[in-house]
Amino acid sequence: MKTISIQGYLSSYSHIAAESIFNKDIELLQRDTFTEVFDDLKEGRAEKIVIPIENSTYGSIYQNYDNLTKYDFHIINEVYLIVNFHLIAHPDAKFEDISDLHTHPVALGQIRGFLEANPQIKSHEFPDTGGGVKMVKEKGLKNAVGAASRLASEIYGMKVLKEKIQDNKKNYTRFFVLGRRDSPIAYSSSGADKTTIEFELGQESGTLFKALGTFANRDIALTKIESRPIMHTDWEYIFYIDVMAGINGKKMKEALKELKDNVKDLRILGSYKKGVYIDT
Amino acid sequence: MKTISIQGYLSSYSHIAAESIFNKDIELLQRDTFTEVFDDLKEGRAEKIVIPIENSTYGSIYQNYDNLTKYDFHIINEVYLIVNFHLIAHPDAKFEDISDLHTHPVALGQIRGFLEANPQIKSHEFPDTGGGVKMVKEKGLKNAVGAASRLASEIYGMKVLKEKIQDNKKNYTRFFVLGRRDSPIAYSSSGADKTTIEFELGQESGTLFKALGTFANRDIALTKIESRPIMHTDWEYIFYIDVMAGINGKKMKEALKELKDNVKDLRILGSYKKGVYIDT
Repeated sequence: MKTISIQGYLSSYSHIAAESIFNKDIELLQRDTFTEVFDDLKEGRAEKIVIPIENSTYGSIYQNYDNLTKYDFHIINEVYLIVNFHLIAHPDAKFEDISDLHTHPVALGQIRGFLEANPQIKSHEFPDTGGGVKMVKEKGLKNAVGAASRLASEIYGMKVLKEKIQDNKKNYTRFFVLGRRDSPIAYSSSGADKTTIEFELGQESGTLFKALGTFANRDIALTKIESRPIMHTDWEYIFYIDVMAGINGKKMKEALKELKDNVKDLRILGSYKKGVYIDT
Repeated sequence: MKTISIQGYLSSYSHIAAESIFNKDIELLQRDTFTEVFDDLKEGRAEKIVIPIENSTYGSIYQNYDNLTKYDFHIINEVYLIVNFHLIAHPDAKFEDISDLHTHPVALGQIRGFLEANPQIKSHEFPDTGGGVKMVKEKGLKNAVGAASRLASEIYGMKVLKEKIQDNKKNYTRFFVLGRRDSPIAYSSSGADKTTIEFELGQESGTLFKALGTFANRDIALTKIESRPIMHTDWEYIFYIDVMAGINGKKMKEALKELKDNVKDLRILGSYKKGVYIDT
């Protein structure tokens, strides 16, 4: 039983990501902020933490890129979740009886098409999506539903009345599992086929081009480039790059050796197995 | 007299940016959100708008990158402001009499060193930095101060009691002036020496490297690369690149022609004169 810390509530997407990686064999710490989650790992309250790093619609979670640099943990694993909202109801409920829906305002914003097509259902704001399901369950309502994850329906003994009612069917969130640098890692680096690195660059002409060329010239693909400003400098940036190669391949070793001479403070944030997409 | 719309209040940094570009010859529209500001330009209520696009400490203002794509306006000008907080007091006030400081919570967070070094001064939160100065003025307080811009002291007939009390002396915000595509531009494109372009790229290996090479191979410097995910796609990105060359140079024309064949939906967001740094 591993203790895993997440930002979010029961049945949230961070919770689903944690369960899908650790096969439900976890004790969950639920926190309000990412800082608390990172501190849980730093101070030993959690063995691993699971954090979102980017969403295909809304972009990178910049706070967590900054945290990667600040805390110097190790990326052990990644996973992509397809973000779905399901209509979740009492096991005996029928769709034609539903008059009220309780969920988080952000979820309401993502199921607008469903709400417009079903004007008989009145929507209500609730502090979290799972909580809406819980409330419907506890009050025994058969004319009310939540809009939440499938895990919410499992946790609260409810049923999925209608699947994937969100407007956007292509909305993915990428999660990292992080461990301390001294902890054993989930995949031996020989099984890894993806690596995330970090380095600093100033504004000199062509430096990023040269850095990217290190990989391009060896036919090693890059899947993501992110940059964040460095505090108290004149427009210097930290770059975060996802490289489609494990750290122990011959070409990758050569590339990293060459890169080290061309950039400042090169760090390997983790070498891990490319994540799978999980429908939810 | 030009009508300029900004997000922010009187004496805010967007206001200072607008005044420094248009030499105070403006009628100011103050809005609560960036969406209102962009709509002011779209619907003709404003002739130009002034928006922050990045800060050297906190990074890009992603909402405004997204707005550049959504609204398809023209970047006419840029300016960099050095973000300072000054201690602003009644013209007759003396530093040794000051017991209370009224400013925005974010400003309080940026003058921590000053507050620790001066424990005799009690800090109080106020909804905006300029408003704190206004309140001190209107109540005729000689033992209270604001922490705000120099413009706030001018507007409210106060004096700067102590300069640059913020912790971070290297904090810059970059602003764009935007106009509609059909409006006359401030700099003829022949005087321009910097260009911002936008294009789309998928995840194919080496595509960004090839795009950057278009400029690097011609010794044209890039000063900024930003990316944002494209809605409803599988991890495709819009890239925003600042190129250190005007749009009419021979090498730049060649580079843009070559780039057009290698990327999707290339757009010139603007070609303008490299912005100056303005102390505030």
